[in-house]
Amino acid sequence: MILDGKALSLKILDDVRNNVSKLSKKPHLVVVLIGDDAASKIYVNNKKKAADKVGIKSTIIELPKKTSEKELLSIINDLNNDKEVTGILVQLPLPAHIDKNKVVESISPQKDVDGFTPENVGRLAIGLEPYYYPATPQGVIMLLDEYNIPIEGADAVIIGRSNIVGKPMAQMLLKRNATVTICHSFSKGIEDKIKTADILISAVGKKIVRCKMVRNNSCVVDVGIFRDSNGKLTGDVDFDFVSPSCGYISPVPGGVGPMTIASLMYNASKVY
Amino acid sequence: MILDGKALSLKILDDVRNNVSKLSKKPHLVVVLIGDDAASKIYVNNKKKAADKVGIKSTIIELPKKTSEKELLSIINDLNNDKEVTGILVQLPLPAHIDKNKVVESISPQKDVDGFTPENVGRLAIGLEPYYYPATPQGVIMLLDEYNIPIEGADAVIIGRSNIVGKPMAQMLLKRNATVTICHSFSKGIEDKIKTADILISAVGKKIVRCKMVRNNSCVVDVGIFRDSNGKLTGDVDFDFVSPSCGYISPVPGGVGPMTIASLMYNASKVY
Repeated sequence: MILDGKALSLKILDDVRNNVSKLSKKPHLVVVLIGDDAASKIYVNNKKKAADKVGIKSTIIELPKKTSEKELLSIINDLNNDKEVTGILVQLPLPAHIDKNKVVESISPQKDVDGFTPENVGRLAIGLEPYYYPATPQGVIMLLDEYNIPIEGADAVIIGRSNIVGKPMAQMLLKRNATVTICHSFSKGIEDKIKTADILISAVGKKIVRCKMVRNNSCVVDVGIFRDSNGKLTGDVDFDFVSPSCGYISPVPGGVGPMTIASLMYNASKVY
Repeated sequence: MILDGKALSLKILDDVRNNVSKLSKKPHLVVVLIGDDAASKIYVNNKKKAADKVGIKSTIIELPKKTSEKELLSIINDLNNDKEVTGILVQLPLPAHIDKNKVVESISPQKDVDGFTPENVGRLAIGLEPYYYPATPQGVIMLLDEYNIPIEGADAVIIGRSNIVGKPMAQMLLKRNATVTICHSFSKGIEDKIKTADILISAVGKKIVRCKMVRNNSCVVDVGIFRDSNGKLTGDVDFDFVSPSCGYISPVPGGVGPMTIASLMYNASKVY
């Protein structure tokens, strides 16, 4: 059974558009892009396009690579204080001379649509409602729920412990009463751990989940996305060999990718 | 091999006293106690005694049970602004009419010696240095380090997911590159999970870890503490039956308990 993220993302974007059209205070997302990283430009444009589709006003602030940390913090400060701006997103990565953590911390938690500020991360970690959940893990949960995958009591194994996927994913699955195991590059016997998973979330960025590794009828969510040696988009999971044995599997592309953008638009539609 | 928390706690308290005596700005811990819960009074007095021992000035503010949330928040606000106060600790639990989360959130992260505010929890969760680590898991890490228990790459299993032990323990072990599994009341086959642990941390509050459950030569840390049917202090682990097979084990009492108070004093000695 394929976890069709493409199809679900369209449904969610529809719902978001519908909700936005009824809001009295209209959301306005500001995306800050620094430098001229080609991939970042594509991501930012995709976010703008998605915002346009759902009727969320969006503005891209493009800044030169040499922008100082102080200038950037001052711009964010202005955006925090601008009542007309409801969401702020600073496209990562930032140039090396800017301290990413300082910048993320400076965003108002009520406008932090990425859910990356310590305040939002901390609220999630202690079981309070954050203002925003990080887009990717929130998208994964939406996908699991759409297909009625039982989370409570399930053995969930997460490979990868980034701040944007692995760690918040662990918190969100724990909140839903899964037993959570977090694996990473220092983990030993990772194949045995993968084998125990009812729900496997792979967020590594290289081909790691291969034939015969997963438990029968398990649910495999592939968050990895990269280009293989032929330039073809692929994920962490060897789809052709793994899919026959698992119960549910998300494809790459068409799985978690579109869910992430839909989940981000869901966040951007929230107005505090 | 016994993880002697009592002995290590004395060494740490010695170090703290030594460091405090050299500080130009002296720490001052304020403990706020609301109502007349007998256990809370004992805990607060023990903290004061420990502070006295290491030369940390401490003040207990005792408030009647009927204190309103607003009054409490106003007192904390004053303490936040008082430059002479370096640490604030609100003894939990609070009376039912007071929102615990609101109170914890109101404490300045730089004075939050318990490490419970969303800011400190969030900083820990995203890999930044929090101003303070929660006392109990920090004490456990100190204990593991004292006995040179390898954490990196170890399979760590935590039973219990409270905000004061299980969840921050998971973050701290993950930060030290352990593979971390968090179990709780919804977990299935918990005995099989316990069996996989190189490091087992039990923080449940009832007798759960029994004979033949733990892996040979593993390290067992017992965070549970409660009175058995005979009124005797005991922990989660059936010490007499478990200790022969494991490599290291912390006793109750004399294990994590004294480490928690030493770890708290270490926190209280920090001045920002």
